[in-house]
Amino acid sequence: MTPSSAVKAALSSQVVETPSWAYGNSGTRFKVFAQAGVPRTPQEKLDDAARVHHHTGVAPTVALHIPWDRVDDYAALAEHARERGLRLGAINANVFQEDDYKLGSVTHPDAAVRRKALAHLMECVDIMDATGSRDLKLWFSDGTNYPGQDDIRARQDRLAEALTAVYERLGEEQRMLLEYKLFEPAFYMTDVPDWGTAYAHCLKLGPKAQVVVDTGHHAPGTNIEFIVATLLREGRLGGFDFNSRFYADDDLMVGAADPFQLFRIMYEVVRGGGFTSEVAFMLDQCHNIEPKIPAIIRSVMNVQEATAKALLVDADALAAAQRAGDVLGANEVLMDAYHTDVRPLLAEWRQERGLDPDPVAAYRRSGWAERIVAERQGGQQAGWGA
Amino acid sequence: MTPSSAVKAALSSQVVETPSWAYGNSGTRFKVFAQAGVPRTPQEKLDDAARVHHHTGVAPTVALHIPWDRVDDYAALAEHARERGLRLGAINANVFQEDDYKLGSVTHPDAAVRRKALAHLMECVDIMDATGSRDLKLWFSDGTNYPGQDDIRARQDRLAEALTAVYERLGEEQRMLLEYKLFEPAFYMTDVPDWGTAYAHCLKLGPKAQVVVDTGHHAPGTNIEFIVATLLREGRLGGFDFNSRFYADDDLMVGAADPFQLFRIMYEVVRGGGFTSEVAFMLDQCHNIEPKIPAIIRSVMNVQEATAKALLVDADALAAAQRAGDVLGANEVLMDAYHTDVRPLLAEWRQERGLDPDPVAAYRRSGWAERIVAERQGGQQAGWGA
Amino acid sequence: MTPSSAVKAALSSQVVETPSWAYGNSGTRFKVFAQAGVPRTPQEKLDDAARVHHHTGVAPTVALHIPWDRVDDYAALAEHARERGLRLGAINANVFQEDDYKLGSVTHPDAAVRRKALAHLMECVDIMDATGSRDLKLWFSDGTNYPGQDDIRARQDRLAEALTAVYERLGEEQRMLLEYKLFEPAFYMTDVPDWGTAYAHCLKLGPKAQVVVDTGHHAPGTNIEFIVATLLREGRLGGFDFNSRFYADDDLMVGAADPFQLFRIMYEVVRGGGFTSEVAFMLDQCHNIEPKIPAIIRSVMNVQEATAKALLVDADALAAAQRAGDVLGANEVLMDAYHTDVRPLLAEWRQERGLDPDPVAAYRRSGWAERIVAERQGGQQAGWGA
Amino acid sequence: MTPSSAVKAALSSQVVETPSWAYGNSGTRFKVFAQAGVPRTPQEKLDDAARVHHHTGVAPTVALHIPWDRVDDYAALAEHARERGLRLGAINANVFQEDDYKLGSVTHPDAAVRRKALAHLMECVDIMDATGSRDLKLWFSDGTNYPGQDDIRARQDRLAEALTAVYERLGEEQRMLLEYKLFEPAFYMTDVPDWGTAYAHCLKLGPKAQVVVDTGHHAPGTNIEFIVATLLREGRLGGFDFNSRFYADDDLMVGAADPFQLFRIMYEVVRGGGFTSEVAFMLDQCHNIEPKIPAIIRSVMNVQEATAKALLVDADALAAAQRAGDVLGANEVLMDAYHTDVRPLLAEWRQERGLDPDPVAAYRRSGWAERIVAERQGGQQAGWGA
Repeated sequence: MTPSSAVKAALSSQVVETPSWAYGNSGTRFKVFAQAGVPRTPQEKLDDAARVHHHTGVAPTVALHIPWDRVDDYAALAEHARERGLRLGAINANVFQEDDYKLGSVTHPDAAVRRKALAHLMECVDIMDATGSRDLKLWFSDGTNYPGQDDIRARQDRLAEALTAVYERLGEEQRMLLEYKLFEPAFYMTDVPDWGTAYAHCLKLGPKAQVVVDTGHHAPGTNIEFIVATLLREGRLGGFDFNSRFYADDDLMVGAADPFQLFRIMYEVVRGGGFTSEVAFMLDQCHNIEPKIPAIIRSVMNVQEATAKALLVDADALAAAQRAGDVLGANEVLMDAYHTDVRPLLAEWRQERGLDPDPVAAYRRSGWAERIVAERQGGQQAGWGA
Repeated sequence: MTPSSAVKAALSSQVVETPSWAYGNSGTRFKVFAQAGVPRTPQEKLDDAARVHHHTGVAPTVALHIPWDRVDDYAALAEHARERGLRLGAINANVFQEDDYKLGSVTHPDAAVRRKALAHLMECVDIMDATGSRDLKLWFSDGTNYPGQDDIRARQDRLAEALTAVYERLGEEQRMLLEYKLFEPAFYMTDVPDWGTAYAHCLKLGPKAQVVVDTGHHAPGTNIEFIVATLLREGRLGGFDFNSRFYADDDLMVGAADPFQLFRIMYEVVRGGGFTSEVAFMLDQCHNIEPKIPAIIRSVMNVQEATAKALLVDADALAAAQRAGDVLGANEVLMDAYHTDVRPLLAEWRQERGLDPDPVAAYRRSGWAERIVAERQGGQQAGWGA
Repeated sequence: MTPSSAVKAALSSQVVETPSWAYGNSGTRFKVFAQAGVPRTPQEKLDDAARVHHHTGVAPTVALHIPWDRVDDYAALAEHARERGLRLGAINANVFQEDDYKLGSVTHPDAAVRRKALAHLMECVDIMDATGSRDLKLWFSDGTNYPGQDDIRARQDRLAEALTAVYERLGEEQRMLLEYKLFEPAFYMTDVPDWGTAYAHCLKLGPKAQVVVDTGHHAPGTNIEFIVATLLREGRLGGFDFNSRFYADDDLMVGAADPFQLFRIMYEVVRGGGFTSEVAFMLDQCHNIEPKIPAIIRSVMNVQEATAKALLVDADALAAAQRAGDVLGANEVLMDAYHTDVRPLLAEWRQERGLDPDPVAAYRRSGWAERIVAERQGGQQAGWGA
Repeated sequence: MTPSSAVKAALSSQVVETPSWAYGNSGTRFKVFAQAGVPRTPQEKLDDAARVHHHTGVAPTVALHIPWDRVDDYAALAEHARERGLRLGAINANVFQEDDYKLGSVTHPDAAVRRKALAHLMECVDIMDATGSRDLKLWFSDGTNYPGQDDIRARQDRLAEALTAVYERLGEEQRMLLEYKLFEPAFYMTDVPDWGTAYAHCLKLGPKAQVVVDTGHHAPGTNIEFIVATLLREGRLGGFDFNSRFYADDDLMVGAADPFQLFRIMYEVVRGGGFTSEVAFMLDQCHNIEPKIPAIIRSVMNVQEATAKALLVDADALAAAQRAGDVLGANEVLMDAYHTDVRPLLAEWRQERGLDPDPVAAYRRSGWAERIVAERQGGQQAGWGA
């Protein structure tokens, strides 16, 4: 197996980006259960994110969501982050929450709505310029609920037109990450339902356009690690939106539903050179019923544990068994790494960096949870609507 | 084939119950798009429902949802309905939208929450007494999001305890309809995930406990008509919550996603004697992006069309082909009925009853849509939250 | 709606290709039920195919499967076809039934096996030269059953290498149709699992490489008509392998499981210009329990009926409703065509061409079924193994 | 956590039954890849099974499949087993591989076929009397491929009639284990598709009728551990057919596809008292491409590892967190046990019983694989057909 020193060195290069919205309230269409102490401002979200980074040591960047994180002065927001040891990460556009977008945004049949949506995307690039963010993450809720509702092909044309305009607006060091999703909130057809569609658009746009894989956005039975391997082979894997699911886009803590799948995904990332390229490891989760900060800490740890196991795979032994057609032997090499309890190794890695070996316990002891409940009185709690 | 006169006579005995909440606003976790003219009170919902019945002639009952339709005087509400040619239908309990229910209602680990939930269910039976409703429809959002979160078996015990208490409270002519759902809003485990679980509970409760089949609540690949046939054979099919889906619980218009499936379901209802027993044909839909009243009219028509096709199946020819093991012949008998365009027959049926042959067109001409937009100004539009 | 004369003209240009193997025995892993009268030779398969064409008038081509249809003299086989009013269609390669292919064919870790598989593909192109076939259909059963069993990325490299070699061997008028399949017989990972993978390979190969859509090869919930629309927009839809399914790759008669889906697919074909381009409409089915010839006739009719309905869609009315954002109106235009009973129109179309209006009944009366049972005594019935 | 001594004691009481057919050849409908050294007789299957028990120490019983394991003298077969430290386990009936069963067995429309099928089931009970087997395992491939093909309800009546006859034939100590399966080889409808159907039949039959859960027989997204918990609560869990799957009924090695699911299932078994009741832990797998004996050894080990982890769950800590509504804490208690590497504990357990700590390695060193290849020359290899 890979020596643990090498594993620890590799782990030290990993960054897990947490999303500002995961610190706010979320829920299902049935009910949003508000939690005490939830942030009311982008600044307070960053304060919480700083706690996650403080305890884990690998979460120095925070993704923003516009307009939920809209502020007057993005430079000041970036400075607020910097003072807490953080950087602002990907900018996430939102063209799904205004009444105009009922039938779509950039694919809407009405050109006026499309123009409005495009203007928002352009604003997001302006914000990237101000924050220094590298990535524009585009997820479109666009789609239709009923067969015949709109023309599938015309919508692709409109999508391509908007993406081209945004692509041309990007700076040299900026990227567009295009996300796909099988369904929800559109129920008959989504305009970017699968990696193939995202890939086809990115290919035409150019090298700064990359596909982002949300682990909850696939049909049942989809082999996600195959997609990861393929996109890396094509040079088109921009990053991940990590979460986990049992059924649909459940947005549970990554690694909670199928830790073996997460391991297999991370193995393909290691195998495909994803750690030495520009793959962004982002969380995209909803902590509807559990306290948010420790859930995010746990999620970051789950990504790390899966990564550590993936790094532990004995690449030479695996390749030898594969070459020999030794089905059981090759599977065994992979499973050996998976079955290893990497928690002691990660505890060591944390202690070597001056971190508490148990981040969740350290957070619980820190008093932060009690403090935010006490201090964050009044105001409007952040949520998907604000 | 069955003579069309017999089909028309059977159609005349069918009642399709529309749900009060389908007249209000609804949406996904991402956005609720409000529509102009949406009712602000239970009375206005009934006014809209009366239009559906006026144009279709088969929708004289309206299901209520408590607390969304809570009023001070249910007798007055029933009278409001009666004046419009309607009756109040099933009472739908809601134990999922208060903060206390974050981890469950009747299955909650905390006995105090369970008592509160049970009290609400009892209140619903009180309301049934006042409205003269026959059916108490119970759907529980109860479940867990994470493995280990709560004890699956203990939750079954708590569920059984609550159901027993409610069952004992029911009057002689009242029924409990227990609904099952694979997932959402709980993502790891729901406490009544499938018909088997609902059936097992109903069996222990007694004959007034019946299973309700929501056509959107199954895993991919589930043969719903098999469940319908089985429950009818067991004498435990209480009714349907009709809607349609491509992926999850999409709550689209019934018949919109898979009209052939709807036909097969209605065939099993016909086959199993569901038209001569107490099976309730209810809609449970969300019209997130389309105008609600015409969508409900269309849905009622879709149920009627599927029913007419099911009634047209040549039962003797089918039985003969089945007995002979004639796979293609038997399939052909069924498909013959399905491929028949029953719209002319339904147009005739409507005209014989003094209805416009095209209910949607008649509604559009009626001016009701414009009138409610003009008149329903101010106030709080009805939605899932109120 | 489109005038029926225009629909009939369009129908006259459609060709539905039947597969030689559908005339032979097939089954599941549990049991192959042999049927009396099944062909023993490629010639007898053609004899049966000629009956399908005789009764339907739209099935003049027959796909071959190598080695199941291997003969010494392909020109003689083509002549046998010609004498019966048929042409030889796509050549289907088989690199999955020899012991060497247990761990793959063109993606096998062992270069010797890969060479053998490639030689077979080249042989298939030789056969195309002899038969005058335009299309080489490539379906690979390649994949792995266990995580780690082989290297996903290396297998992609090997696949690309083989495809390139075959592509370069193709003549000017020949095409490669690359098929994808989610799973089976490989259970963990297939090397061409989805349209995106097939598309990415085709793109690199060149314009003669096209994607073929088998309607039974997708994950649950996949919107197949979206893929059809997208591939047509990209100029990469080579054809269909039609069949239908409830669960996995059931290979039932096309249109039997979800006739509405088939209609939606055919609508996208019409919309995307698929009738004026080179899209091949092929069946790929298994008639495990029903008699094969009438099942194939029924399948051809089902494709025709779906096509007729798709052609009946009022394109102007649909576009107008879509532009206006009239969700219900647009859906209604589509459903109007779907609900139309096109069987009378197709009966007319057949009579105008001197065909019996009811092909299945005509076949039953023809005595062919009895004749082949009587005549085809002895010998080895054709099946998937031969 | 539970002390490891208690875990080891519990492990010592577990029996994992291996199926005779897993030692023979198997495959998909596309190809059965024969393996050298595969048994040719029931006796040779027992010889192989004895090696599995020799190396694992927990597999002393072997399930038989009739007619595949039909012998003239079952007492002699039982003695052959006994001499190798084995006992004969469940008798598996096969009413799916004769031509008569094309349209069903006990549910067939033709009474003569039903009588034949019933006679076979009765023969299986006779065999149980001879072998001393406790369990009759019934899986029916019965179902239909096309809507309308047969009458769903009439088939249930026929099924009930056959089950009743068999039940009445059972001895005092014998049980009927009724298996359900979503689909395959029937593709439209299976007569026992889900646990609810199996449960409903068992309930009417009596306490000796129990449900068996095959872990590969569910729709995507089904929560299997919920079913396990529910059946244990109802006193109706007769046993498991273990295997694993990514898509359909893949019959891969148990624990290979989703080891976390297997752990959750075993946790519910522990929680529900399944180790102190009569739950049978059986494998039902196909080793299509990997060598069979080491694959079965690995599968037995996978069940043991999942069991050990399930036993390690700190029940008191879990219950406390659940009672407190501590979502993250309760999940953490479960995950703590899952993340534990139990291989050292199992190695210890084996050494304490005089077994090699690494059963797969010990098997590889034993020379058995080479010996059977050398000795088992000629004859007809066992497979699903014989």
